[in-house]
Amino acid sequence: MTMAGVADSLLADARARIEREIDATFDRLLPVPDDARARLIEAMRYAAIGGGKRVRPLLLIATAGMYGVDRDSAVRAATAIEAIHVYSLIHDDLPCMDDDGLRRGKPTVHIAFDEATAVLAGDSLHAFAFEVLADPQTCADPFVRVDLARALGAASGAHGMAGGQMMDMVAETAEFDLHTITRLQQLKTGALLGAAVEMGAILGKVPHDGRTHLHGYARDIGLAFQIVDDLIDHEGDASIAGKAVGKDEQAGKQTFLTLLGAERAREQARLLVDQAVEHLGQHGSEADLLRAIARYIIERDH
Amino acid sequence: MTMAGVADSLLADARARIEREIDATFDRLLPVPDDARARLIEAMRYAAIGGGKRVRPLLLIATAGMYGVDRDSAVRAATAIEAIHVYSLIHDDLPCMDDDGLRRGKPTVHIAFDEATAVLAGDSLHAFAFEVLADPQTCADPFVRVDLARALGAASGAHGMAGGQMMDMVAETAEFDLHTITRLQQLKTGALLGAAVEMGAILGKVPHDGRTHLHGYARDIGLAFQIVDDLIDHEGDASIAGKAVGKDEQAGKQTFLTLLGAERAREQARLLVDQAVEHLGQHGSEADLLRAIARYIIERDH
Repeated sequence: MTMAGVADSLLADARARIEREIDATFDRLLPVPDDARARLIEAMRYAAIGGGKRVRPLLLIATAGMYGVDRDSAVRAATAIEAIHVYSLIHDDLPCMDDDGLRRGKPTVHIAFDEATAVLAGDSLHAFAFEVLADPQTCADPFVRVDLARALGAASGAHGMAGGQMMDMVAETAEFDLHTITRLQQLKTGALLGAAVEMGAILGKVPHDGRTHLHGYARDIGLAFQIVDDLIDHEGDASIAGKAVGKDEQAGKQTFLTLLGAERAREQARLLVDQAVEHLGQHGSEADLLRAIARYIIERDH
Repeated sequence: MTMAGVADSLLADARARIEREIDATFDRLLPVPDDARARLIEAMRYAAIGGGKRVRPLLLIATAGMYGVDRDSAVRAATAIEAIHVYSLIHDDLPCMDDDGLRRGKPTVHIAFDEATAVLAGDSLHAFAFEVLADPQTCADPFVRVDLARALGAASGAHGMAGGQMMDMVAETAEFDLHTITRLQQLKTGALLGAAVEMGAILGKVPHDGRTHLHGYARDIGLAFQIVDDLIDHEGDASIAGKAVGKDEQAGKQTFLTLLGAERAREQARLLVDQAVEHLGQHGSEADLLRAIARYIIERDH
């Protein structure tokens, strides 16, 4: 097998295993109760189980794996961050937000259930994430658990993902320059991707001054990820993407693509991924999965 | 001064001080940034600062006070639980939920701003709560911080407040008996009121087996609080309540009131408050504020 072939197979195996593990954890931690809350839990399960690229769990588990973290701990923390991602998708898809009907190849939660249930299912997955992290089963060390919660809270609130979503809404009418678009994307997508890597490092008890290269890696793949998302929205096929495409252009939204053009945007994404891989230079083969994830990010079509 | 007068003044002083402290903490922790996120933070501040009964902060700080907890710690934890309460009000008021235009005497967030901003402001306050709890400034002991996050997560998600809201939605069309309505209210309102008391006990490092009476107190005032809410919705004046009234009846929703009638409901609330106060029998004057809060809960008109 070629080197690229080895990396592909490493990534494919890791993805398949992590998909099973994340689905199994959601399934175990979200049993459907025998009362009027059943519909809420069913909506949470509908959105959380099956489908999705599981990029954040992959990043978290791959980072934790470099530092010998117990697999069950990493999977629980990965399920928590994926719960945050899923809640943000449910709320993003609401009629008052992006008004999307298709997500991960199936009707969005407010279509399959109803809007009120979608709001509550998102809110419940949000709380679920912190419940999972705070549980001693995630890690016996309370320092680690509370630091995981801190990192996830910071990455998902007004100074992270939600703040980026707000800027994204403003971007539909405002004139943003490349600096502001970069900042927007660092918050909207980058913060949570960065938290995935950071949470892996927290579980691995990597000291703060030993994480600089990981921050660099996460920052670069975060931006590359968003540029590729823009390209998929521009050129992609809804049936492959599993969600509506062409929405940014319809909304007249400024993105990396409108500012750079497709060719330069693609080049920039490649550059960022090369740079991300360089950050891992101090690591040997234990970082191969993180390297393969970086490559996957620009090669994906959905 | 009479005994009742002393209790009134104790409560009035505590409320005034806590209102100032909670407002000041939100103000300090939510500075408006000089970028496109400004609108989001302004919406969070609009909903969180000024107004509201601050019942959850009162309960948390009163409980923590019994155990000599550092005031700054208690105020930070109280701000976190109030942030969860405020986020739930913002989302509850959305057109797809209760569709309310008035809250705390002013237009709801989706009216004063817009629906998408309201969704994001709620989500951001949700994350903010866990960020605040996880911060070492809340308490140096990581065990305490992570236990606060655990308690708040459990009380606000599908097995707490959000689950109760789901049951409440189902209650508009289903036939619920008194047992189910009680369960609904224990989740919808009782869980977060209970968490306020529990978080005070966590900060006070009260051992689990020393909290039974506090759980009893919290459970009883939680139900009494909801019965009084139903009575205010039934008999209240929107200008005093600061929110729309008469909505339950319009929606044909079953409540304690429809099942018990106003007279028996009021009697039941009084009974619960007496019972709540009895749970505090082992405490001396240090529990006077909790006793006064219990009395206030049935005497309030909003």
